[in-house]
This record gives sequence, C-alpha cells and structure tokens, in this order.
Amino acid sequence: MFTSRLKEVHTTVQVALDAAVARQPEGPLRAPMHYALQGGKRLRAFLAIESAAIFGIPEAQVMPAAAAVEALHAYSLVHDDLPCMDDDDLRRGQPTVHVKWDEATAVLTGDVLQTLAFELCADPVLGPAERRIALSLALAKASGAAGMGHGQALDIAAESATDPLSLSQITALQAGKTGALISFASRTGAILAGEDEGPLSDFADAVGLAFQIHDDILDVTGCEKAAGKRVGKDAEAGKATFVSLLGLTGARLREGELIEQAIDALSPYGEEAENLRAAARFVISREM
Amino acid sequence: MFTSRLKEVHTTVQVALDAAVARQPEGPLRAPMHYALQGGKRLRAFLAIESAAIFGIPEAQVMPAAAAVEALHAYSLVHDDLPCMDDDDLRRGQPTVHVKWDEATAVLTGDVLQTLAFELCADPVLGPAERRIALSLALAKASGAAGMGHGQALDIAAESATDPLSLSQITALQAGKTGALISFASRTGAILAGEDEGPLSDFADAVGLAFQIHDDILDVTGCEKAAGKRVGKDAEAGKATFVSLLGLTGARLREGELIEQAIDALSPYGEEAENLRAAARFVISREM
Repeated sequence: MFTSRLKEVHTTVQVALDAAVARQPEGPLRAPMHYALQGGKRLRAFLAIESAAIFGIPEAQVMPAAAAVEALHAYSLVHDDLPCMDDDDLRRGQPTVHVKWDEATAVLTGDVLQTLAFELCADPVLGPAERRIALSLALAKASGAAGMGHGQALDIAAESATDPLSLSQITALQAGKTGALISFASRTGAILAGEDEGPLSDFADAVGLAFQIHDDILDVTGCEKAAGKRVGKDAEAGKATFVSLLGLTGARLREGELIEQAIDALSPYGEEAENLRAAARFVISREM
Repeated sequence: MFTSRLKEVHTTVQVALDAAVARQPEGPLRAPMHYALQGGKRLRAFLAIESAAIFGIPEAQVMPAAAAVEALHAYSLVHDDLPCMDDDDLRRGQPTVHVKWDEATAVLTGDVLQTLAFELCADPVLGPAERRIALSLALAKASGAAGMGHGQALDIAAESATDPLSLSQITALQAGKTGALISFASRTGAILAGEDEGPLSDFADAVGLAFQIHDDILDVTGCEKAAGKRVGKDAEAGKATFVSLLGLTGARLREGELIEQAIDALSPYGEEAENLRAAARFVISREM
C-alpha cells in the first residue's frame, strides 16, 4: 500500500522534474541536470504531497513544491559527492556527476539545481503569492546557512576534528544536514494552506532524526547493491555515528521511539494523515 | 558625483549584507560568507537601487533586493574561482575563499550565499507578496540554467573547444554569464513597482554587453593592482575575447555605441534616471 503510493509519487514527481529541466534552454547543463534528478526514494516529495493532502490540497497543486524539494536535495547530493567534499564515485547505483562529466560541470549543475528549486517555488499553480513567498522563504531557511548548509559545514569540520562528535553534536549536525529539508517537505502542506505548522514540524523533527539513525544503521548492516552507494565508509573513517554512540540495539530502540513520537504528533489529523504515518514507519524499515 | 553616490551605496549595501550574515547562526560558514561579501564595485546593487528610484521607491525599501543581487554575484565569484573552474587565487586583491579556507568551504559558502539571495528576496520590506515572488522568480531565471549558469557552462565548454568562439557565440556566453544578473539588477525597480520592465531591460542589455567588452579591454590594458585580480590571462590562454575579435579600437568603439544605446533606452524617464545614465558611462570608463 505505502510502497505503491510512493511509486506513484515517484512517477508523477519525475514527470514534473523532467518538464522543469526541459523548460531550460538547450545547453551543456541540461543533460547533467536531468541525470542528477533521476532515481532516489522521493521521500521528500512524498512528504510534501501527503502533508498537502491533510489540508485538502490536490497533488497537482503541490507538485511544484514537491519537485522543488527534490531539486534542492539533488543539488546537495551532487555537491556532497564532489572530490573536495565526500568524494563519492557512486550515487543511486550510478556514477556521480563529477565522474560522468567533470568537477566544473558538477559544481554548476548543483548550482542551477538549487536555483531551479527556487524557480519552482514561484509557480502560480501553488496558489496565492503570499503562500508562494512563504514557501520560498521556508525553503531558503531550511537549506541555507541556518539549515542544510550549516549541517554540511559541521560535517566537514568534524572530519578534521581530533575527537569524534558527541551525541548532542551529531544530533545538531544531522538536524541541519538532513533534518531541515525533511522538515520543510513535511511542513509544505501547512505553509501552502496557511495553517499551523506545529504538528507537522514536530512530526518532521522526529522523522528526520530517525531517518539519519537508520542511515547509520544501514551503513553498518546494509549491502552496497541495495544502497546504490558505498557502505561501511563511516566506520572505516572512524567517524562518530548514532550506531557508534548508541550501539546497534540502542540505535534501533531510539529510532523506534522517534517514530512513535512522530505518529503521536499527527494526532490532530485523521485518516488524511495515514500516508504520513506509513512514511514514518517506512523510514525505519527501509533497506536503502 | 557618480563615484560618491556609488560609494554611498557601497556603504549602505555592506551594512545590509553584514546584517544578513549576522542573522545566520554561528558556525563554520559565517566567516567565509562575511569574507566573500566584502569589496567589489557594488554596481549591481547600485543599478537595483537607482532603478527603484525611478519609480519613487526609497532606498530602504529596495535594499534587500540590492543585497540579494550582490549575494548572488558573490556566490558566482566564489564558485568561479574554484580550482576546477577558473582556478584563481586572487579576487578583489585578496586570497580567494578556497585559498584562505579550503575547497569544501568555498563550495558550501557559494551554495549558502545563493540561498541567502533568495532569502533576501522574501523580505517583507520589499512590498506586497506578489512583487516579492516576482522578484524571486526573476532572480532565479537570471541566475539559473537559463541565465548565469548557462553562460558559465558555455564558458567552461569553450575552454575545451578546438576553435576560438565567434563574436555571436561570445556575445551569447556573456549575455548569460554577466548580462543576465545586470539585467535583473536593472529591472528590479520596475519589478517592485509592477511597471513595464522593457526600457530598463533594453538599458541593461546594452550596459551588460558594454561591461564585458570593457572587462576584456581591461584584461589587455589594465594593471593587476588596480584590478585586484590576475590580468592578461585571457590572452595567455588563447581565449577569444571582444578585443581579440574586434581589435582594441573596435572594442572601444563598440562599447561607446552600446552606452549611447543604453542612455537612449532611458528616454522615457527624466531626471530620476540620471544616476543610471552616469552608471552606464562609468561602465566603460572604469579602470577596474
């Protein structure tokens, strides 16, 4: 049920992303933009679409926002994979952009994917200008120097630190690096409806942290084929992770508690939030 | 007169930029963001502020847009200077971000400066939501895969091309690389006022092209100290420039014609456009 719904979202958001790239002029960045926007779980798009459903906003109306959060996420992956950052050759089972093209192309592709995300936030389909500018501002706050960018920078800084990070440090790092964008995606419906973002924000905080704990678990237990990327690299690098800090059992307990919290946060909503509840459960059961 | 006005703008926009950085949480990106936002001519901020003055919009009201275009420009310079791009060690007479810090920091700093630009476009000071979202969309179009990003990619592609670029190719490249953002800056006033962007757009197209021709002239005739960056590098690299294609005299004639066109385009406006006319003249008389 949930996985078939996620597949549906995958298909519709891919159409929206491909159309957004096709609207750009022909040039050297079209192919790598298109390439960088393939694959992935589309969990962030799903969260955006399902958070909108709670407020009765149809999928077509929230679609540019769902595409925006995926474009933003894709940009962060392209830059994160660069040799000067995580130096990854493989992403979603395919060569990374700087491997398939070159570093300059990867820098520029990430740059224009970020721009595309903000272009998408201005799409009139999303509703009144007030809601669109609120969405754009929320995306900027989630992804910039107070959000994802902050988390990325803490991550880079941690690599040259002498001591491994503490639990509170790694929690702060991940709240920026992955949590902020998951929060944006989950709040999208409330932003577009002009409603209280509180419950969805609480939901997202718990889901975002559980998501990262589960990523750390998969880095230890997962296989490269399922993940589509290199695994075991955190342990190799001697990096502190939720697993190294909590133990495997402790990490599994913690992610379970967080998903309960996330589901509790959705109590103001009824049946309409069922897909979000399923998404929360998926986050800690996924194998990639 | 013009230069003192430009200095005033420099001071006020610097205050706005520093305040925008100070609003970000403490972290590893604050210092390089602040650093990357120092110096420069602030011509784009000037164009934004003076285009707004035409429509009676006070400086304080347009200031976040002026800061946004400078943040966007600064991001493009930080990324452009990266080793995988132009590989420049010096910018505005100072070590570039990747030299002073490292490449990862430079990638992230550029990334969050772009985000900051879109955050600034949402500032309520700028007026009704409709105008702010129009501004944000115009900035996205000017800087993304249809604008500056496109020009940057053409520039990178030209480096590995076997033949030097033709005049029409280099004109298209520069229309993206520098023209699109100059156009955005010059149209800012009309966008915020909800007025016809046509005359300012024509003005900007001519000024933008003249700006690049003059840069190419300075690359041949300028001195490193005044420019604050390496000069003569285009000729060294055997790159086609407006000077190599038109000759020095031809390039000077062409930039002069363009500035006449730019000034003609402002004929619908009176006294209020005098500072923009002066800016156009400055573009081809500047020594850096």
